[in-house]
Amino acid sequence: MTKAISYAAHDPKSPLSPFTFERREVGANDVQIEILYCGVCHSDLHQARDEWGNSTFPMVPGHEIVGRVTQVGSHVKKFKAGDLAGVGCLVDSCGTCPDCAEGLEQFCNQSVFTYNSPDKQSPGQSTYGGYSNLIVVDERFTLKISDKLNLAATAPLLCAGITTYSPLRHWNVGPGQKVGIVGLGGLGHMGVKFAKAFGAHTVLFTTSPSKVEDAKRLGADEVVISKDAAQMQQHALSFDFILNTVAAPHDLDQFMGLLKRDGSMCLVGVPDSPHPSPSVANLIFKRRKLAGSLIGGIKETQEMLDFCAEHNITSDIELIPIQEINTAFERILKSDVKYRFVIDIASLKQAA
Amino acid sequence: MTKAISYAAHDPKSPLSPFTFERREVGANDVQIEILYCGVCHSDLHQARDEWGNSTFPMVPGHEIVGRVTQVGSHVKKFKAGDLAGVGCLVDSCGTCPDCAEGLEQFCNQSVFTYNSPDKQSPGQSTYGGYSNLIVVDERFTLKISDKLNLAATAPLLCAGITTYSPLRHWNVGPGQKVGIVGLGGLGHMGVKFAKAFGAHTVLFTTSPSKVEDAKRLGADEVVISKDAAQMQQHALSFDFILNTVAAPHDLDQFMGLLKRDGSMCLVGVPDSPHPSPSVANLIFKRRKLAGSLIGGIKETQEMLDFCAEHNITSDIELIPIQEINTAFERILKSDVKYRFVIDIASLKQAA
Ligand SMILES: [Zn+2]
Ligand SMILES: [Zn+2]
Ligand SMILES: [Zn+2]
Ligand SMILES: [Zn+2]
Repeated sequence: MTKAISYAAHDPKSPLSPFTFERREVGANDVQIEILYCGVCHSDLHQARDEWGNSTFPMVPGHEIVGRVTQVGSHVKKFKAGDLAGVGCLVDSCGTCPDCAEGLEQFCNQSVFTYNSPDKQSPGQSTYGGYSNLIVVDERFTLKISDKLNLAATAPLLCAGITTYSPLRHWNVGPGQKVGIVGLGGLGHMGVKFAKAFGAHTVLFTTSPSKVEDAKRLGADEVVISKDAAQMQQHALSFDFILNTVAAPHDLDQFMGLLKRDGSMCLVGVPDSPHPSPSVANLIFKRRKLAGSLIGGIKETQEMLDFCAEHNITSDIELIPIQEINTAFERILKSDVKYRFVIDIASLKQAA
Repeated sequence: MTKAISYAAHDPKSPLSPFTFERREVGANDVQIEILYCGVCHSDLHQARDEWGNSTFPMVPGHEIVGRVTQVGSHVKKFKAGDLAGVGCLVDSCGTCPDCAEGLEQFCNQSVFTYNSPDKQSPGQSTYGGYSNLIVVDERFTLKISDKLNLAATAPLLCAGITTYSPLRHWNVGPGQKVGIVGLGGLGHMGVKFAKAFGAHTVLFTTSPSKVEDAKRLGADEVVISKDAAQMQQHALSFDFILNTVAAPHDLDQFMGLLKRDGSMCLVGVPDSPHPSPSVANLIFKRRKLAGSLIGGIKETQEMLDFCAEHNITSDIELIPIQEINTAFERILKSDVKYRFVIDIASLKQAA
């Protein structure tokens, strides 16, 4: 066992504060990683505040983890001490079900999330995430990280990146297509980068006129203010695919109506209360599809990381010391971040 | 011009009653058909009573038409006098848009419906449907009908048949799959027959225990009473595809939860008021799809008719004289029909 230092939520109401715990011994199949950076995902906040009703405390959030391998188990083949490595939303799964067999571990009903999940390897304890200086993870759930990219800006690829990359790949987004991204936040700004990199004509939908210029800088070919009915109408029946990253309840039909016949809109955020019920006529009269997508499997996450290294894609980030995590949470609630907070884990040493 | 006799709705409130009008001259590309049988679709009732707010009167409903060719225009190649022929929901479209180019005329924004549509060939007039003794239709929208099948029972294939055949084909239903059909009415009973004929393990969902035996007779491998939560739970996460033929507002999630990862549920009925908003989590956590489908194009309708001739598939019908159409409408409202009324058009002669 190795002592780890971290910031943890101790209950749903209090600010996150320092917490010390033990990481397990490095097993034969394990990789031990010194965490260097960890992205701050909106779901960290939801779970720290028990907004999904399934939280266990103390909770060490964080599932956008990058760092350097410090030790590997005797059976580990892909990693050695000194390598860069990453960990995303998952640290284990059954390994044998049809989902696992297809490399879609995110859908395995025995998958173990990186934090706030019962820890099979330390029974009775929950998994602890990346707001800490150290993690021990099975090699199968450890990702290779290129040294070509800015390491801090790579961290958000592990959740925001794969969550947008996976549906864009699943729906075969590419050249000759017109693709919409709804919302310019942590997920949306990655969606714009990927849709553009895949060769699609990329349109960003936002309610904020102030985001137009930045969206274009990030790669959007067009930006549409979704509150402007006239602008929206000009795009009716023209989209092959829309990736909707907005979790807040909103009118889905305004976007469904922009899809061509046989077009799909994919949701990646679960709203706190239901969206208004989408129009069935909108589905039937153009054979449209409304779908959902959940992060991505390990194989696809590695493919995404490799794609990013090749195409020089990272997240736009604001680097913070961990002492500012509670302020960062408040700013996330106001969408006041361009476009992802990343914790510089070196700051933890001052806190412990 | 040729005089046609019919039954028509003269306003949204009165019973249908006899009506005489003129069919256009047989043009170079036209086929004139003596109508022998016409199926009674729920949408006939909706439109006769102006429940969709787009009705013009007088209205001659009917878009499940079969009969015998009496005359053809000089350019007609596929039909000659004496042939059996059918007409479904469409009688024209633009012919050049991408939808038409792919044989998906039902999605063309200039498509002309068989009744209650502005008639391009008789400007200022609406199209008149199959509750009549005669129709003149462009060859492109006239279907070949096999003499191997019971002709009256073939009529409902032109709407109820293609509306269920098309989505089952679009989602590639076949052997090795578990497929659900929700609702055992005019559409649902055809869905069961097709899903079974395509080789799928076919499960019928109904709220009525009284329909269990009949569903099995029609081909269902299993029947599930959808109000029985325990029965439903046994089928969780097991379906590849569900065709939902129920238009009445209902809880879609109880069926979405039965889909496997990547499964789709397709709706073919537009509810009068919205369904409860479907769960986004249900979509995301198994990458499921909620979709819609609209009848089918002419090419696929012919393919469906040929498939039915080969596999001896027709609708289960109750044959009625046209004088009973108003009673039939009332019985349709009570779902008191097994499973489609078909009008014996010979009865029109007594009425005219
Ligand atoms: Zn996340
Ligand atoms: Zn598994
Ligand atoms: Zn119909
Ligand atoms: Zn067209």
